[in-house]
Amino acid sequence: MDEATVPSADLARAVEARLAASHDDIVERLKSFVAIPSVSTDPAYRDDVARAAGFVAERLRSIGLADAAVRPTEGHPVVTASWRGAPGKPTVLVYGHYDVQPPDPLDKWISSPFEASIRDGRLYARGASDDKGPMLIPIEVAAAFLAETGRLPVNLVFLFEGEEEVSSAHLEPFVAANREALKADFALSADGAQWRADLPSVTVGSRGICALEVTVTGAAKDLHSGRHGGAVANPIQVLARLLAGLHDDRGAVAVPGFYDDAEPVTEAELAAIAAIPFDERAYLDSIGAPEGAGESGYTLLQRNWVRPTLEFNGIVGGYTGAGKKTVIPSQASAKITCRLVPGQDPRRIPQLVAEDLRRRAPRGVTVDVRVEHGGAASYAIPADHPGLVLSEDVLESVLGRRPVRVRMGATIPIGEVFRRVLGIDTVFFSFATVDEDYHAPNEFFRLSSLESGLKAWTRYLARLGERP
Amino acid sequence: MDEATVPSADLARAVEARLAASHDDIVERLKSFVAIPSVSTDPAYRDDVARAAGFVAERLRSIGLADAAVRPTEGHPVVTASWRGAPGKPTVLVYGHYDVQPPDPLDKWISSPFEASIRDGRLYARGASDDKGPMLIPIEVAAAFLAETGRLPVNLVFLFEGEEEVSSAHLEPFVAANREALKADFALSADGAQWRADLPSVTVGSRGICALEVTVTGAAKDLHSGRHGGAVANPIQVLARLLAGLHDDRGAVAVPGFYDDAEPVTEAELAAIAAIPFDERAYLDSIGAPEGAGESGYTLLQRNWVRPTLEFNGIVGGYTGAGKKTVIPSQASAKITCRLVPGQDPRRIPQLVAEDLRRRAPRGVTVDVRVEHGGAASYAIPADHPGLVLSEDVLESVLGRRPVRVRMGATIPIGEVFRRVLGIDTVFFSFATVDEDYHAPNEFFRLSSLESGLKAWTRYLARLGERP
Repeated sequence: MDEATVPSADLARAVEARLAASHDDIVERLKSFVAIPSVSTDPAYRDDVARAAGFVAERLRSIGLADAAVRPTEGHPVVTASWRGAPGKPTVLVYGHYDVQPPDPLDKWISSPFEASIRDGRLYARGASDDKGPMLIPIEVAAAFLAETGRLPVNLVFLFEGEEEVSSAHLEPFVAANREALKADFALSADGAQWRADLPSVTVGSRGICALEVTVTGAAKDLHSGRHGGAVANPIQVLARLLAGLHDDRGAVAVPGFYDDAEPVTEAELAAIAAIPFDERAYLDSIGAPEGAGESGYTLLQRNWVRPTLEFNGIVGGYTGAGKKTVIPSQASAKITCRLVPGQDPRRIPQLVAEDLRRRAPRGVTVDVRVEHGGAASYAIPADHPGLVLSEDVLESVLGRRPVRVRMGATIPIGEVFRRVLGIDTVFFSFATVDEDYHAPNEFFRLSSLESGLKAWTRYLARLGERP
Repeated sequence: MDEATVPSADLARAVEARLAASHDDIVERLKSFVAIPSVSTDPAYRDDVARAAGFVAERLRSIGLADAAVRPTEGHPVVTASWRGAPGKPTVLVYGHYDVQPPDPLDKWISSPFEASIRDGRLYARGASDDKGPMLIPIEVAAAFLAETGRLPVNLVFLFEGEEEVSSAHLEPFVAANREALKADFALSADGAQWRADLPSVTVGSRGICALEVTVTGAAKDLHSGRHGGAVANPIQVLARLLAGLHDDRGAVAVPGFYDDAEPVTEAELAAIAAIPFDERAYLDSIGAPEGAGESGYTLLQRNWVRPTLEFNGIVGGYTGAGKKTVIPSQASAKITCRLVPGQDPRRIPQLVAEDLRRRAPRGVTVDVRVEHGGAASYAIPADHPGLVLSEDVLESVLGRRPVRVRMGATIPIGEVFRRVLGIDTVFFSFATVDEDYHAPNEFFRLSSLESGLKAWTRYLARLGERP
């Protein structure tokens, strides 16, 4: 019997068995992968990011994808590989990212962020959940198919970027310049995350993002706060006032024009969100928050999924060490990101915020606003997309329960980029879970999710291979 | 001729000549002194602070003060020494401090902060101007008198503390416990600083100080700003709003009760300030500030000298490294100090600020305010104090111009402590200059000020010795 005619369930079973037998090897590879501190936001880690790209390309070559390559961009490199040996079958663009968030605050990690530690069925390391564990899954699944049958059930193009944590700034030009090579029927993303550990879900939309940084400068140097206090402006005081003015008393963003282009949320969307089982208290307990907060007039999930936000990600100025230092700092600065909803332009919004900050700058200081390149618009997949429906079927078969459709407060820029540049939609098929503390100390990835993910990707590709 | 009958001018000339001949040795001793990083605010430097105390005591012993000793307190030690061989002559309590401010931001120092570098007649090092250079002067002058004549013109008690930069928290109990040993007619402070490099001045009053730190805590851990943004409070947003509310639109402190006990500034005081030659633009240029700012309705000098302030000395929260990190931090905090005027209680004021912050704390966060111990009240010397008038006469003889009387925006807690606990006033006789970047990178001390200071202290003690 030719491999191509093996029923997909039998094929999947054989590949799943092979993957189960390789479990320890796969975990070891994940450990090696997370040991590379590929922090994309900090130039100090540039070589490590490159090293992680090399690790991915080498693994893709070793499983039999001869064209695997580290492809330079103006930022961190992209890794690509392809297998197109199934003419007439669908072609899927597999997406993931090998870069990670910074590990700080380091003192809050129980084990070293770049040395995997397995405790209670969880692999702890920076990047384990976002996105090294999840992106390793389709590679390992492809490896198992190739080892088992010498071929894949569908055509695959792998695209792994190294700038997801910095808004995928150079992904779009790369995709645009490689349209033909990346040609596919749809994208299947290993990044995205399950909404809850106890409730299977598929993500059908994500918010966009834009980022800026504001710096207030007073005197040219730090001043003694007694000698000079009262004489000149205090940049922290000015910054606090500027930031406080970005929200109104109801918690809404006060920047003129901020909401102008945001598409209104439909009644149907609001009803769908209301229908999702959600224990607000349990959620708040899970993150240790005393209560919910934010824009009034919306539920917690509505605020998080379908309302735009303006968040402060960092602030610093003056003396921040132990004890006190009686100084008026020369500068104080804050990092800001906005999460965007459909209609909001990631290039226009930060300009509106910047204009508002500059307009309100008082005398005695200079206010510099630096808008970051590489924002991303919001994205939503059509409700009847066949790749989406297949993902729901497969998740139900693996997890025993039909997944709910959820939105995501976070941003995956690729959805919007792939649609605009390649004309294809993106199905999010990630096995990270939202409680895994990515972007925080003690990030972890459940080994049970690794197993579910390997099964699910196997069945997904096998069943997709049945289609013409 | 007995030494005691040598005319003071001749005696001073001989001692000045001896000091001039020792110039290089004195500079070397200052270099050794500033090489000890006696940063009192940071526990990491505890041993260095103790080492600096030992250095001072050893020097005092070596010049012939056998009772020189490092005296423990509940904080950093005090160094004392005395010479009481001139019965019937005045007794002066000489004050200075051997602790220094933290050196950061380290990257802004041109030469290493704890390795003296002499450039253009200035000795650059942390503590060179505040207060190691100035406090070395009376020691060197006493050394020269003792070497020249075997005695001093007046009785001296030396008191050098190690906590001036942390509000002299343990000085008052030490002074109270050593009232008899410290008994003197008045105090002469080597700390205090000349107001301007080009205009001799004597300081007749200083503002008080109190300190507190506010910490806003939201969730128990840092959160992904996409995943959770909009759902829960952002501690930086809350902190900015709390801090912004501490001043009103006119730049005045908005804390209820803040001004209630502040004694009104008299017309005479305002007129005296107006009579002082002051080039506001030159001052602003000297610190690189675009313009003055602060409480409206007052001139720059009035705001700085006789109006209380609430200053932010440091703020930190979230990600502050290079690039961006999409995080909602668990915490954000700010350091605050207030400068106080006569009437304001350094214990009551921070409680008022703390109450205001706590009262305005919104839902979804906890607001912790820690009030620092060891504040200090404002101080002013009586206008006709003989020690003050002598300081003016001596400065005129050394610098060729009658000094103006100025106030100080900064705090020297000893003025108020010595008056309250010992019943004596304090004459500020420092040769630091306000532009010497203490509390900032590249602190320096003018070698010309070292020479002027050595002459002035010599003449001051010689002339005071003429008095019964």
